[in-house]
Amino acid sequence: MTEMRTLKVALLGCGNVGAQVARILIEDADALAARTGARLQLSGIAVRNVNGRRDVDLPQELFTTDADTLVKDADLVIELMGGIEPARTLILSALSNGACVVTGNKALLAQDGPTLYEEADKAGVQLSYEAAVAGAIPILRPIRDSLSGDRITRVLGIVNGTTNFILDQMDSTGAQFADALAEAQRLGYAEADPTADVEGHDAAAKAAILASLSFHTRFALENVHCEGISSVSAADIAAAKDAGFVIKLLAIAEKLTDADGGEGVSVRVHPTLLPREHPLAAVRGAFNAVFIEAENAGELMFYGQGAGGTPTASAVLGDLVSAARRLVLGGPGRTETTTGHVPALPIAAAITSYYIGLDVADQPGVLAKIAQLFAEHGVSIEIMRQTIHRDAESMVESAELRIVTHRASEAALAATVQAVKGLDVINSVTSVLRVEGV
Amino acid sequence: MTEMRTLKVALLGCGNVGAQVARILIEDADALAARTGARLQLSGIAVRNVNGRRDVDLPQELFTTDADTLVKDADLVIELMGGIEPARTLILSALSNGACVVTGNKALLAQDGPTLYEEADKAGVQLSYEAAVAGAIPILRPIRDSLSGDRITRVLGIVNGTTNFILDQMDSTGAQFADALAEAQRLGYAEADPTADVEGHDAAAKAAILASLSFHTRFALENVHCEGISSVSAADIAAAKDAGFVIKLLAIAEKLTDADGGEGVSVRVHPTLLPREHPLAAVRGAFNAVFIEAENAGELMFYGQGAGGTPTASAVLGDLVSAARRLVLGGPGRTETTTGHVPALPIAAAITSYYIGLDVADQPGVLAKIAQLFAEHGVSIEIMRQTIHRDAESMVESAELRIVTHRASEAALAATVQAVKGLDVINSVTSVLRVEGV
Repeated sequence: MTEMRTLKVALLGCGNVGAQVARILIEDADALAARTGARLQLSGIAVRNVNGRRDVDLPQELFTTDADTLVKDADLVIELMGGIEPARTLILSALSNGACVVTGNKALLAQDGPTLYEEADKAGVQLSYEAAVAGAIPILRPIRDSLSGDRITRVLGIVNGTTNFILDQMDSTGAQFADALAEAQRLGYAEADPTADVEGHDAAAKAAILASLSFHTRFALENVHCEGISSVSAADIAAAKDAGFVIKLLAIAEKLTDADGGEGVSVRVHPTLLPREHPLAAVRGAFNAVFIEAENAGELMFYGQGAGGTPTASAVLGDLVSAARRLVLGGPGRTETTTGHVPALPIAAAITSYYIGLDVADQPGVLAKIAQLFAEHGVSIEIMRQTIHRDAESMVESAELRIVTHRASEAALAATVQAVKGLDVINSVTSVLRVEGV
Repeated sequence: MTEMRTLKVALLGCGNVGAQVARILIEDADALAARTGARLQLSGIAVRNVNGRRDVDLPQELFTTDADTLVKDADLVIELMGGIEPARTLILSALSNGACVVTGNKALLAQDGPTLYEEADKAGVQLSYEAAVAGAIPILRPIRDSLSGDRITRVLGIVNGTTNFILDQMDSTGAQFADALAEAQRLGYAEADPTADVEGHDAAAKAAILASLSFHTRFALENVHCEGISSVSAADIAAAKDAGFVIKLLAIAEKLTDADGGEGVSVRVHPTLLPREHPLAAVRGAFNAVFIEAENAGELMFYGQGAGGTPTASAVLGDLVSAARRLVLGGPGRTETTTGHVPALPIAAAITSYYIGLDVADQPGVLAKIAQLFAEHGVSIEIMRQTIHRDAESMVESAELRIVTHRASEAALAATVQAVKGLDVINSVTSVLRVEGV
């Protein structure tokens, strides 16, 4: 056997994912070397506290608090610290030193991706981040490479396992949001402070990354409209179920063309009704999935574990081996192609279907009045279903009206709902939820 | 704008997929150039008859019968002729001329892949074939690159749309195989001569390719055990349904370790029972899906359209843009890593669960006799379920016995079934089918 080159790998951060990456680099060293054509030598692990508790037993001498020195001496840098600083400075330093960087830092990428991509381009090295979206699921490379000869029109992703677990619990047990959240916390699927997950911030960062790759344009977090699931009630879930839908928190990126042929991309995260027969509806528990529609490929779906130390480590190591192979074979790193310049659309310009629940007076002509109002606002009704409830004691009747619209703009829908609220026959608007996949 | 380099693309074959590839190369020329960094100029289309009928209207001057000359002058060659010759000679000629080759020719790859890979390695150019397995679904690149830092343990694929359509029809309508096949032929999902699809040969070629990439070892068609679906009866489907299973034709590649720690890969295609809640069970109609189990990533599934001109063209163009980007950026082509040397196992060494249907005499002690026989052969029973049928007129009782075993070797199972047939209480063995996902 010929002498193999050794590549030095610096690991920044040793949490849940980092510890598994370190373990695999050590345990599977021979197999990784065979596939890479070079030995991947873990040269050190930068942490805040070298004596901190780890999930995995790792050689103590690998730990250091001196991330700067570790990075300067590395061929490949894996950043799994999370957060903006010092991750940002360390990644920029690694890239300008000519090291390839693998990161799972979705917050940093969504906030400051362009700076990082430019530095990687300038240095001619690879910056990879498969682990940043949907954990173990290979999704970024397929979008960037496999679909590079196609035109993606829409991406719908279940990219946050915590919220999918909570919504799935609510759907299967009828639980309220607070109880399902408590259960998710008890099982370790949700953090003590669940804000980033339940308010959709985590999914929004991933939506920005998915949109950027899918539409060859750089979208930042500020381009993403974001609504979480904390206001989804057990009643919403039950009504959706009754109408044949399931509620999922979706990250959506979709290209829209206006009447004048102008193109824009709507990037948003919000609770969404999906028909029960839609492939994403079957994604249960803490699993993730990304559904892609492309002009030529048609419908594609990618499914797997979206979080967890070992699954996410698989994505990190896939990036690492690919980057290392490139170093062994020679040739420049893959650059991000940002060839499109499609503007991000405000949420008012988003076009989707809606589910609207109304508590109405049971009087003749109510349906006609409401239908007339929708028509006046240019919102076409697909399904209208009335259920009469009679209180046996008081003999008072009330009616529940459920409407599913055809695709309409957010602006038109908002105006319609506002006008509906003004009708004297309306007791209350019980829910307004967006619908996809119909 | 700076002057862009032009790369000449030769297209060999202009059937269903080829015609769509040509159309997209012409219609989307600007977008493809922007993503590639070079113009992809379709320099010609080699066909047998330049006046043949095409699905798509293409410039007549592109057509030629002189494939040799076309290939000699090309930077990139797309081979979509199918069959072994002249495809093989033309691909080898293109590679040795330094052209990158994109092909969808699964038969050629399964039969003679190693020769092609070696020629590509020698010439330092790229040989890509995403379209050869599961049409539009990006599956080969994720296995080769995204999972390069992981260890795949098992691949289960629905990789033939024709047979999935037929089995799905049988499952949902109760039709017999012959009627479902006729329906598939009427709708254009099955060819006039359906042998390659229904007997599993098409799936077997794809199984060889999937196994080779997943286990870093070159497996050929002769290493694949292959059984088709023509012997699957409506009664098999009904019995499976009744027991909570669905029957799918699966391409399976799985690593097995024997008692002495020796490793081998079992590569096979056969009708397989899957629990209805398995993600692959929901793959309906002519769709394809590949389910992967990896040590770190856990369970992954890739779903989409497995055939059709436009979807398959998407995979071809993804390969083409990736290869062209590499030519623009410089650096050698990606070589196939064949770092493992895991032997292919004979079917007798395959280990799986089984479903066995028996028509037995309704006598006391029958179950005990059968259970004893299974135990003697080292096959452990997971579920045993007896249904008594009484003929009202003759008053004769018969019993139907359905057994699902734990995982056992094919050899042990075959010996067990042989022994069961010899029991005097057995009227007949009504079905023996393999089970996955339990």
